[in-house]
Amino acid sequence: MTVVTDTIRNGVDTEKMFATLDLIKQQPELAQFQFRATNRWLGGSHNQSTIRGFYAAGGEDTSRGVEFKIDAGEPAILLGDDAGPNPAEYLLHALAACLTTSIVYVGAARKVELTSVESIVTGAMDVRGALGVDEEPRNGFERIVVSFRVAGKATPERLREVVERAKQRSAVYDMVTNGVPVAVQVTID
Amino acid sequence: MTVVTDTIRNGVDTEKMFATLDLIKQQPELAQFQFRATNRWLGGSHNQSTIRGFYAAGGEDTSRGVEFKIDAGEPAILLGDDAGPNPAEYLLHALAACLTTSIVYVGAARKVELTSVESIVTGAMDVRGALGVDEEPRNGFERIVVSFRVAGKATPERLREVVERAKQRSAVYDMVTNGVPVAVQVTID
Repeated sequence: MTVVTDTIRNGVDTEKMFATLDLIKQQPELAQFQFRATNRWLGGSHNQSTIRGFYAAGGEDTSRGVEFKIDAGEPAILLGDDAGPNPAEYLLHALAACLTTSIVYVGAARKVELTSVESIVTGAMDVRGALGVDEEPRNGFERIVVSFRVAGKATPERLREVVERAKQRSAVYDMVTNGVPVAVQVTID
Repeated sequence: MTVVTDTIRNGVDTEKMFATLDLIKQQPELAQFQFRATNRWLGGSHNQSTIRGFYAAGGEDTSRGVEFKIDAGEPAILLGDDAGPNPAEYLLHALAACLTTSIVYVGAARKVELTSVESIVTGAMDVRGALGVDEEPRNGFERIVVSFRVAGKATPERLREVVERAKQRSAVYDMVTNGVPVAVQVTID
């Protein structure tokens, strides 16, 4: 007789997930992570980040076989040549991606099988702030709206609860809504 | 006789830059921009944003010939398979990219020729928050440190002033340090 255990849900290995949660409960010091990006200016509005290494669970993580290179740019109206999405668009992507992953993981933990998660994120900005034309508008988005369409094998009420819990746990949603202290250090070569 | 005008500085067309600033001063309604990302879950921790259209200067911008597709994932220790940088890493990238572009543009406006702008951005996180193991740590980074190395044809003092002004004008630095109101809407299919 073969026993098939249903550990993969929403593409997430829930057995590994619960084992990780148990381990971190027992050894909270393993929960200290540090993520990094190194960025280099490539001319005009084009710059590129390299992302690979990070610190996790008591040591430098070496599991990542790939190094990610991501390009930022600006469109023509903001004096660029579309070398990549612009930095504010990357922030919208970070927010959508984090909420989506949180929805998927919360669903996996709660035995809610999802079939589709899509979102549109919009940010409204008065660019007079960032351009230094006027002191009144802020530099960044005045507001951000995230519109999710979610489908899954659960009642609408249960799916809404998953999204609500994901909001309460998303790292980027926390940072974008509440802010983070940022220190900027400068070395002149 | 040929007159060579020195309008390109740091790869930025300063003539176009000042013309844009003048136009927005005269017609502030042109400063209303809206950026967007659409995101789709692709299984597990993998999701992808599509970025192309945006609203700018009184209408939908159609200048972008390219559509950007950017993948988010998680490393193995966070139950993923490295389909892309994770969402929190994208936020670090957005911050580094925006500060860098601001440095380059401010330098161009102030006649400061830059030769190199590099940065390392780190974010420290106690993942017990995002994992829901403990209510005490916040979900996102507790702090972010951005370390710039800047070189250019100007005094160190002048280069530091450029970085300081860029901080005061960066859209993403504003959003990450001060937060943005975010509305999350949900439609269940």
